[in-house]
Amino acid sequence: MWLLVLGALLGVKPLYAADGSGSADPVTPVILAVALILIAAKLGGDLATRIGQPAVLGELVMGVVMGNLTLAGYRGLEWIQSDVSVDMLARIGVLVLLFEVGLESTVSQMLQVGLTSLLVATLGVAAPFALGWGVGAWLLPEHSPYVHAYLGAALTATSVGITARVLRDLERSDSTEARIILGAAVIDDVLGLVILAVVSGVIVATNAGTQMGYGGVGLIVLKAMVFLAGSLALGVYLSPWLFRLASKLRARGVLLSLGLAFCFLLSWLASVIGLAPIVGAFAAGLILEDVHYRDFVDRGEHGLEELIHPISAFLVPIFFVLMGMRTDLRVFLEPGVLGLAAALTVAAVLGKQLCAAGVWRKGVDRLTVGIGMIPRGEVGLIFANIGLALVVAGERIINQATFSAVVAMVIVTTLITPPALKWSLARRTRPAEAAAPGAGSRPG
Amino acid sequence: MWLLVLGALLGVKPLYAADGSGSADPVTPVILAVALILIAAKLGGDLATRIGQPAVLGELVMGVVMGNLTLAGYRGLEWIQSDVSVDMLARIGVLVLLFEVGLESTVSQMLQVGLTSLLVATLGVAAPFALGWGVGAWLLPEHSPYVHAYLGAALTATSVGITARVLRDLERSDSTEARIILGAAVIDDVLGLVILAVVSGVIVATNAGTQMGYGGVGLIVLKAMVFLAGSLALGVYLSPWLFRLASKLRARGVLLSLGLAFCFLLSWLASVIGLAPIVGAFAAGLILEDVHYRDFVDRGEHGLEELIHPISAFLVPIFFVLMGMRTDLRVFLEPGVLGLAAALTVAAVLGKQLCAAGVWRKGVDRLTVGIGMIPRGEVGLIFANIGLALVVAGERIINQATFSAVVAMVIVTTLITPPALKWSLARRTRPAEAAAPGAGSRPG
Repeated sequence: MWLLVLGALLGVKPLYAADGSGSADPVTPVILAVALILIAAKLGGDLATRIGQPAVLGELVMGVVMGNLTLAGYRGLEWIQSDVSVDMLARIGVLVLLFEVGLESTVSQMLQVGLTSLLVATLGVAAPFALGWGVGAWLLPEHSPYVHAYLGAALTATSVGITARVLRDLERSDSTEARIILGAAVIDDVLGLVILAVVSGVIVATNAGTQMGYGGVGLIVLKAMVFLAGSLALGVYLSPWLFRLASKLRARGVLLSLGLAFCFLLSWLASVIGLAPIVGAFAAGLILEDVHYRDFVDRGEHGLEELIHPISAFLVPIFFVLMGMRTDLRVFLEPGVLGLAAALTVAAVLGKQLCAAGVWRKGVDRLTVGIGMIPRGEVGLIFANIGLALVVAGERIINQATFSAVVAMVIVTTLITPPALKWSLARRTRPAEAAAPGAGSRPG
Repeated sequence: MWLLVLGALLGVKPLYAADGSGSADPVTPVILAVALILIAAKLGGDLATRIGQPAVLGELVMGVVMGNLTLAGYRGLEWIQSDVSVDMLARIGVLVLLFEVGLESTVSQMLQVGLTSLLVATLGVAAPFALGWGVGAWLLPEHSPYVHAYLGAALTATSVGITARVLRDLERSDSTEARIILGAAVIDDVLGLVILAVVSGVIVATNAGTQMGYGGVGLIVLKAMVFLAGSLALGVYLSPWLFRLASKLRARGVLLSLGLAFCFLLSWLASVIGLAPIVGAFAAGLILEDVHYRDFVDRGEHGLEELIHPISAFLVPIFFVLMGMRTDLRVFLEPGVLGLAAALTVAAVLGKQLCAAGVWRKGVDRLTVGIGMIPRGEVGLIFANIGLALVVAGERIINQATFSAVVAMVIVTTLITPPALKWSLARRTRPAEAAAPGAGSRPG
């Protein structure tokens, strides 16, 4: 029955609501939040662009300001951070972003940088892991090796959202550096799964007095490989046929709807087998190439990339402003946090710079690749969160200060990346190009 | 803290989930549902277009089929109907639709048909109310007059979504008939609030042994008038200034983001004062005129209408497919329902045809206006739902059969409108124009 959910659609319920509240339609708080976020995103993006920074930095900072108004005693925006529907829009937004970025590359272009990406990803996991372990052993010698291993693991992740967005803001998503970073981020995600499985498995096994099995780890690796290989197979064989079939459909917006459906189905598939949904969204973007929907463009429709832009302009800022809003600046004020956080941040940045040594292709800017791998974003926070739940012999292995230091490291690496990447890319650009404003020239 | 909600973003949780379920990221079921809905919508839209019907009919019917697979024993899609996030996307979709339709008219165009719309709306409420009361008195003489009054009230509503969508599918949103219908639907919404307040107030008061106050009713009317007048004032004075200011912002997608923010803020405002959010979305579309964002278009950006199309192509089908899915065909099988349902449907259709007598302008097709007012959609279901909750002297005044008959009336009026409106519009179109396919020629 549609009654239950549609029952309040017209906002007439307030007349009968016992509490007399004015919001009968559940959409009411959501659209208010989205409107405020969109306005904040554009104001922040404007300020960032004016000082020569990528718009995403402005959105993040604006979010941080909105989310920390509680420190100034204003709690009127706090509900936005925990609204389930706003969160869902943000999650869909990051999928659309990765899909959009994936559309700018092709599978064959990615395969060309495949080996480089694999090297970068492997080094980019190994180096921060070693450095993080070292920082733990140096600053927390009284803690168990589990804590040191956990800190190492927390530094391995790469959050591709920030980098992908900066590259798009600066219209550099189709550069070789971009492909290496994005490819490495996808592989990172797979490696991250394995590390998480191993570290947690060891701790859980120790706790239970048993040994962990290798079978589980092997299964994850196998699933990831099957998924990636399957996506490529889809790209080469299935999707041209699917879209040629779809081009026969006589309805408005077929190309966009089916493109989005393809993106969402692959994201869902990735999630079901235990990978991040964004891996699927990016793979979907890679697979779809102009040639697949030439039939649509030939009959006067817009290309898929152009159709996706308004949707990403609507949903993507929600993700970044919300990410900013959820950044609790109070972690920096906690005692014993700053020193550990600073050391972890240095290890996080240095570790990803070392991984740039994996770039063996000529003419590729190693520094840009290294910087592009820096942000930990939401991925680092997952590690932090999981750490809080790890228990050995009835005791939590991560205390509040260690946890806060990891969160602080995530905040700093996420916020320094947009300006650093902008600087690094401009360094290698011809003066005439560099003089043009980085963002804002694209319609949409 | 962003941890709690972002914690599962990378889909790594399954490794630790006690139940071993594969969907750690809450976005997983939502994107699967959206992908299935989008594919179904395009297939349905294609079939409908092929037989010369508006695409929305195909989306509705495809939804009805998907939602009633349970009758064939397949329950695999049932969860979509009650998923809160899919529902929220549908709600945002109908706001985007009304905003889009509103963009195709201006405030001054609406004011030209204002008096006609007011007459149509008033007659379109009075005639079905009288006919519904008559049907009740005739077929349910053993029930109290409250039941008859309730049946009359349930017939008064107009669901503007279906008509707006059909007009858009046929690219007739900017016709005089369209403006009269849309204006009347907005006024209908206000009148509907008053009727609901009166009918329910009387019943509740009777139940409590007291008299109902006129103050509450007056307050609703006042709020609605203030809102509509305020929207117009905004349109004339405030929004050109706002958008001229906004055009100075140097970020990507400013026009679209601020246009959507404006739509959402007005929808929110409408909801807060007790009106339907769609009234606010439509008003926002009316207010925004090309001239307000000329600065954006002058510098090479797309117009707002063109930018909204992909977003509506993404979200609007979710609303209609979901509406179809929530249609429970079993109501037609319940004993004693068919006769009452048929009589109510005839009363519902006839009542709205009588309201076309309010069209006193020359050259306007009365039949089209009358047909455009027929669908009850979700609005009729709100009445049905409220009826279920009404109690006099400890007894529910509406029994299951009466309730099901109202629901059946809503289903029929909603499904017959697209083909009827298409036929009515084609009747008055020049043969050359009528031969062209109604939908599908627009990019997007």
